[in-house]
Amino acid sequence: MAGKIPPRTLKGFRDYPPATMIPREWMIDAARRVYRSYGFSPIDTPALEHLEILLGKGSEETDKQLYRFVDHGGRPVGLRFDLTVPLARFVAQHIQELGTPFKRYQIANVWRGENTQRGRYREFMQCDFDTIGTESTTADVETVLVIHDLMRALGFQRFTIRVNNRLVLNGLLEKLGLAAQAPLVLRTLDKLSKIGPEAVVEQLAKVADASAKQAGAVLELAMLTGNNTDVLPQLESLVADNETGQRGVAQLADLQDAVAAAGVPHERLQLDLSIARGLDYYTGMVVETFLDELPGIGSVCSGGRYDNLAQLYTHQHLPGVGASLGLDRLLAAREELDLIEQVQTTAQVLIPFFDADRRNDYLRLAAQLRAADIRVEFFPEPKKLGKQLQYANRRGFRVALIIGGDEFAAGECQVKNLDSGHSQTVALAEDAEAVIDAVRSLLTA
Amino acid sequence: MAGKIPPRTLKGFRDYPPATMIPREWMIDAARRVYRSYGFSPIDTPALEHLEILLGKGSEETDKQLYRFVDHGGRPVGLRFDLTVPLARFVAQHIQELGTPFKRYQIANVWRGENTQRGRYREFMQCDFDTIGTESTTADVETVLVIHDLMRALGFQRFTIRVNNRLVLNGLLEKLGLAAQAPLVLRTLDKLSKIGPEAVVEQLAKVADASAKQAGAVLELAMLTGNNTDVLPQLESLVADNETGQRGVAQLADLQDAVAAAGVPHERLQLDLSIARGLDYYTGMVVETFLDELPGIGSVCSGGRYDNLAQLYTHQHLPGVGASLGLDRLLAAREELDLIEQVQTTAQVLIPFFDADRRNDYLRLAAQLRAADIRVEFFPEPKKLGKQLQYANRRGFRVALIIGGDEFAAGECQVKNLDSGHSQTVALAEDAEAVIDAVRSLLTA
Repeated sequence: MAGKIPPRTLKGFRDYPPATMIPREWMIDAARRVYRSYGFSPIDTPALEHLEILLGKGSEETDKQLYRFVDHGGRPVGLRFDLTVPLARFVAQHIQELGTPFKRYQIANVWRGENTQRGRYREFMQCDFDTIGTESTTADVETVLVIHDLMRALGFQRFTIRVNNRLVLNGLLEKLGLAAQAPLVLRTLDKLSKIGPEAVVEQLAKVADASAKQAGAVLELAMLTGNNTDVLPQLESLVADNETGQRGVAQLADLQDAVAAAGVPHERLQLDLSIARGLDYYTGMVVETFLDELPGIGSVCSGGRYDNLAQLYTHQHLPGVGASLGLDRLLAAREELDLIEQVQTTAQVLIPFFDADRRNDYLRLAAQLRAADIRVEFFPEPKKLGKQLQYANRRGFRVALIIGGDEFAAGECQVKNLDSGHSQTVALAEDAEAVIDAVRSLLTA
Repeated sequence: MAGKIPPRTLKGFRDYPPATMIPREWMIDAARRVYRSYGFSPIDTPALEHLEILLGKGSEETDKQLYRFVDHGGRPVGLRFDLTVPLARFVAQHIQELGTPFKRYQIANVWRGENTQRGRYREFMQCDFDTIGTESTTADVETVLVIHDLMRALGFQRFTIRVNNRLVLNGLLEKLGLAAQAPLVLRTLDKLSKIGPEAVVEQLAKVADASAKQAGAVLELAMLTGNNTDVLPQLESLVADNETGQRGVAQLADLQDAVAAAGVPHERLQLDLSIARGLDYYTGMVVETFLDELPGIGSVCSGGRYDNLAQLYTHQHLPGVGASLGLDRLLAAREELDLIEQVQTTAQVLIPFFDADRRNDYLRLAAQLRAADIRVEFFPEPKKLGKQLQYANRRGFRVALIIGGDEFAAGECQVKNLDSGHSQTVALAEDAEAVIDAVRSLLTA
């Protein structure tokens, strides 16, 4: 067979080489550490589910984008398009043994046959956390705290968490006699930042049959943004005499107090009554997160409270709250903000293979460094030293240990700082202690 | 809609609840740490590939088991059935930018529509590492060292790494005039431990047309096992006068020396000339790993050297060596050997929600503990203390911090050791330092 199969990925899919995968693993690790610090536990669910579990659970769009087929046993199946639907199925199936509150995170790929022209991929990673089985707003508070800690752990300093509460708008709509049109109003408000206030008023009239006065009141609410002292007085007057609305306002006020008590700087949390999050199933707090330096990329961590997660699969009432971290979007942001070190190796130290007769001595030294928790690569072939140092520089190693025949004979090792180019000579004793110390001090410098 | 969709996974698939996923994440972490300590870098490739990339690349069986369908764009696609075929496609596509040696690990799920009766799953995780682009046997040595460190990092003390070298058998077959039948001989030898020596001799005669004398010589070779001093003299005489065989014997001898120089205890590496690893593409060292206490579960880490990884996709000659860790098999082994702690939480400390008026004080304390790197869950609802402590015990928390109205008034906190049931009273100051110290000393005890 002379012809080769052209090596390529499918349209809309991509490979992650080390230069991208190393920072991605770093981000996943950082996210996991934060989830774990709050007692969220990992779960995993299959990539493939019975088609009826997935179908009709997102939107018309997700149905259309679903990768679906018939498996070997003649079963209609699909690849998950998010982690929320599998979570709903999972808790319906297992909540009896798990008990509540059930706090889980799941970091896994999902698949959508999307139009790739928007620069989106058909396989991407979701990174979700949820607290299931409690109506307590303390879990809402914690959701915001987790988002705050996530952003910090991922290396961001300048970001704003924007919160709203569905009860406020619901209260206003009740008061205005527009309660039945709530979903239509939500979807219109969701476009506020894109189409502007005038177009929103126009659409509210057209879509939700709102009078100019009704549309004006909705818009007035949606334009409110700031912290408690800025916003609460106006909010309270807008929903005066409506119990639902007042509950929403009280929850927002309490959320900001509690988050401040836990040490989140004031300016990082803003009430923003325009946050609508088109999804109908949110029923209380809703939250979005924006990078101050890159607002254009949209929300990087979004979520909210929902009433009944698993109602399609079980009679058990399972309220909850959670959010989803846009890991791949944040990876792009970190690249754009120059927060990513350009390395293509996981090791810190390269030992060039210099003297072919001394291979076992190099292997022993590498093992000693690893036992001291230093990550070491030993070059596998005795090539020219220059070539090996080029390799070290291209990959981003920080230190090279240069030991040739002369050095072995003299019981010495050259510890070379690859950033500065500076070398120091260190004794190469039986226990390698001096070498380990020298490498450590370079790595922690 | 009154009818509920029955929540269930597909046949052959399973959920990972926290009790299974926590130790699984621990194992993945341990494996990654070892890979990184040798300078292997992570990559990822898509779950879906063009069908022609996957088809005909494994065996007839993998072709039959392939999950395949036609995507939205009319392209025939398949879900990867291993990580080796995607690696071959990946290096053919990217090796020019990546350069060699290219050392990668990949930890990801693969899918096979297997018969589930053998207790196998249709979705399982593979955990592979390979060094691409070098013929140096130093990379073989390193492969064995990585396996050794992996097993140690995963908590195993009693295991044996068994190595062979294809050149030895090839040399013997050349000498016997059976070179053309090498693949058939390999597949027969692979069954030695199952069917026994007599049946192997019989099958060698039938399948590979071997005379009694030829079959006897092959069997004599395959029965050799032990370390250099036990095995080398007999090996050398079996392949005397054959250059290929002698190269194989020299590589085996050198491998054992080098691995010992790097500090691996003698008894953990055995030459075993019966290790055949049915796969035809291995051309040099082959390796398998067994748990001494559970030999019946088979090899838990296997691999070897191959000549030309990506020949179906590129004209570039890419030799390499690597192995695959049987992560799910080892998870089962750890369960069987009672090496897994029964915990269902990632947090160490539970703060019961005891006094409803003090919520913000609890939140502040939890944040202070987290800032000191202690993982803390705050119960989201002010339930009865007994219920909350039951929850803590069931999930496996180690410490509870009990603070009610009285304690807050007195500036005190009860630090309760949930293993022993013992409580101590500690000052609850502004900076929580005494609490942090008390918790730390319990957690490190």
